[in-house]
Amino acid sequence: MTRQSDLTLDDVQAARDRIKPWVARTPLLTSRTLSAIAGVEVRLKCENLQRAGAFKIRGAMNALLGIDPEARKRGVVAFSSGNHAQGVALAAKLLGIPATIVMPENSVQAKVDATLGYGARVVQAGVTSATRDAVARSIAEETGAAVIPPFDHPAIIAGAGTVGLEIAEEWPEVRSILVPLGGGGLLAGVSLAATSMLPGVAVYGVEPEAGNDGQQSFRRGEIVEIAPPSTIADGARTLAVGKWNFAIIRERVRDIETIDDERLLHWTRFAISRTKLLIEPTGALGLAALLEGRLHPEGPVAVVVSGGNADWSVLCGS
Amino acid sequence: MTRQSDLTLDDVQAARDRIKPWVARTPLLTSRTLSAIAGVEVRLKCENLQRAGAFKIRGAMNALLGIDPEARKRGVVAFSSGNHAQGVALAAKLLGIPATIVMPENSVQAKVDATLGYGARVVQAGVTSATRDAVARSIAEETGAAVIPPFDHPAIIAGAGTVGLEIAEEWPEVRSILVPLGGGGLLAGVSLAATSMLPGVAVYGVEPEAGNDGQQSFRRGEIVEIAPPSTIADGARTLAVGKWNFAIIRERVRDIETIDDERLLHWTRFAISRTKLLIEPTGALGLAALLEGRLHPEGPVAVVVSGGNADWSVLCGS
Repeated sequence: MTRQSDLTLDDVQAARDRIKPWVARTPLLTSRTLSAIAGVEVRLKCENLQRAGAFKIRGAMNALLGIDPEARKRGVVAFSSGNHAQGVALAAKLLGIPATIVMPENSVQAKVDATLGYGARVVQAGVTSATRDAVARSIAEETGAAVIPPFDHPAIIAGAGTVGLEIAEEWPEVRSILVPLGGGGLLAGVSLAATSMLPGVAVYGVEPEAGNDGQQSFRRGEIVEIAPPSTIADGARTLAVGKWNFAIIRERVRDIETIDDERLLHWTRFAISRTKLLIEPTGALGLAALLEGRLHPEGPVAVVVSGGNADWSVLCGS
Repeated sequence: MTRQSDLTLDDVQAARDRIKPWVARTPLLTSRTLSAIAGVEVRLKCENLQRAGAFKIRGAMNALLGIDPEARKRGVVAFSSGNHAQGVALAAKLLGIPATIVMPENSVQAKVDATLGYGARVVQAGVTSATRDAVARSIAEETGAAVIPPFDHPAIIAGAGTVGLEIAEEWPEVRSILVPLGGGGLLAGVSLAATSMLPGVAVYGVEPEAGNDGQQSFRRGEIVEIAPPSTIADGARTLAVGKWNFAIIRERVRDIETIDDERLLHWTRFAISRTKLLIEPTGALGLAALLEGRLHPEGPVAVVVSGGNADWSVLCGS
């Protein structure tokens, strides 16, 4: 068993070599308008243009490729209502691995359809992540399928970290990186890769105000669990960051900031209008905090846009 | 005075050489999802990623560069509530020419702000295009400024035609091209360039059902004027196609189809969700008609997405 402190840049580089044929190297796009408002040069790392519409396939693919060929035949199982579901489903489809995704009973039909569209079997069960976790684990026990966790796993973190590796390679002048924070897969991975490659770079996490467990944990120095938060940032409704994730975040991250839903929606819509790119509210967390002046990072600044699978009902405020 | 039939591919090529330093060569993007639904290979010519968010700057820049340096000092004037306003304003700013844009009194403030943001002077007058035309012409008479018409002018058509030239150069295998139709600048230009370069290619125009003056004109063989149409496709609310435009369209275009607003909004939102690109309803006319099965073009098909300056109120159906 690898210890948490053992995860290094080498793991991220190995992940990159492994997943390269399967995932997009997303563009790092400049925006004059956003830079002018922020008062620093801003570039967006566009994981909304990633396959399946979010960074999640990076970690999912890395985890799946780590399963030995014999075990792959027994399939994989994951629980998620969102981008992790689609990431695992597509990664499994690409590798010819049977996948079962446990989704909440009250899932938006479009998300169920998208997951089915990638060829996964969907089991709808419960409405809390605890119920779904239990269902996923019982499916795994019955079938021998491997559970692919959404964030608290070294393979997931290393896969997500390839986002940071690409930023640091392409733009070594970057001084700050802003990253949306849910369970911490992306923030841990990006901070690990970026601060290893560019020792002076400052990495910030941004959470929805109602789900500020990460900020509380960061400030207290231990993982804090909160009650299920109500926020439009559905990718950041996690109750607590993962153990693997927190061990890296507390060492590598400069600070964690929050933004409230009203301002998050405002800046999400603003960013979509100006960049002509569809961004989901969770994906706009970093950008919204920057444009709102919630943090003042040294420029130039890379902002990770983690996904683009936005619900119209959310974007339209209904 | 050039006769209407004299406009040729040479004019489009000259326009391209002239405007090249100032406008983007927009990407021609593939979409597996959209191709699967259409049953033919589909690529999107993304003028929503053009400077100022629409194809309009191509014609505007070509027209402005055609004004002699002495006359440029007296400025330019245009009337428009939409993309032509921003196209002329940005083109004028880039060339250091003073610009006055006459916009309706009931303009959306965001559009006024965007036009002001490009450094133009904005005069708000009337709510009909006839009033605004009169105001623009009186400003032109008083100041000596040149009027830049939105579509019925050879320089505007040749500039817009560079969209077709780029498609034909980059993808000579294309068999059909779908183009949104308002006043006909884009449709005339694209059909002129594309059918000149690729004689077998079929070019189709698509209008909102409520504003089908182009289809009526095409079928009757003469320009038909309609009452102001009510449609969410605000770039296609023109009452009649232009004379220069119609002379080219009747010779070069295969057919003109329509799509109603309800299906247009449905497919606009669908396309945004799947491509992760912001598309305005007018810009999605061709794509909506294709996905709805209103026309069945021979593949492969290039679909011109003419702009991405979508209002949230329209996208959200409010």
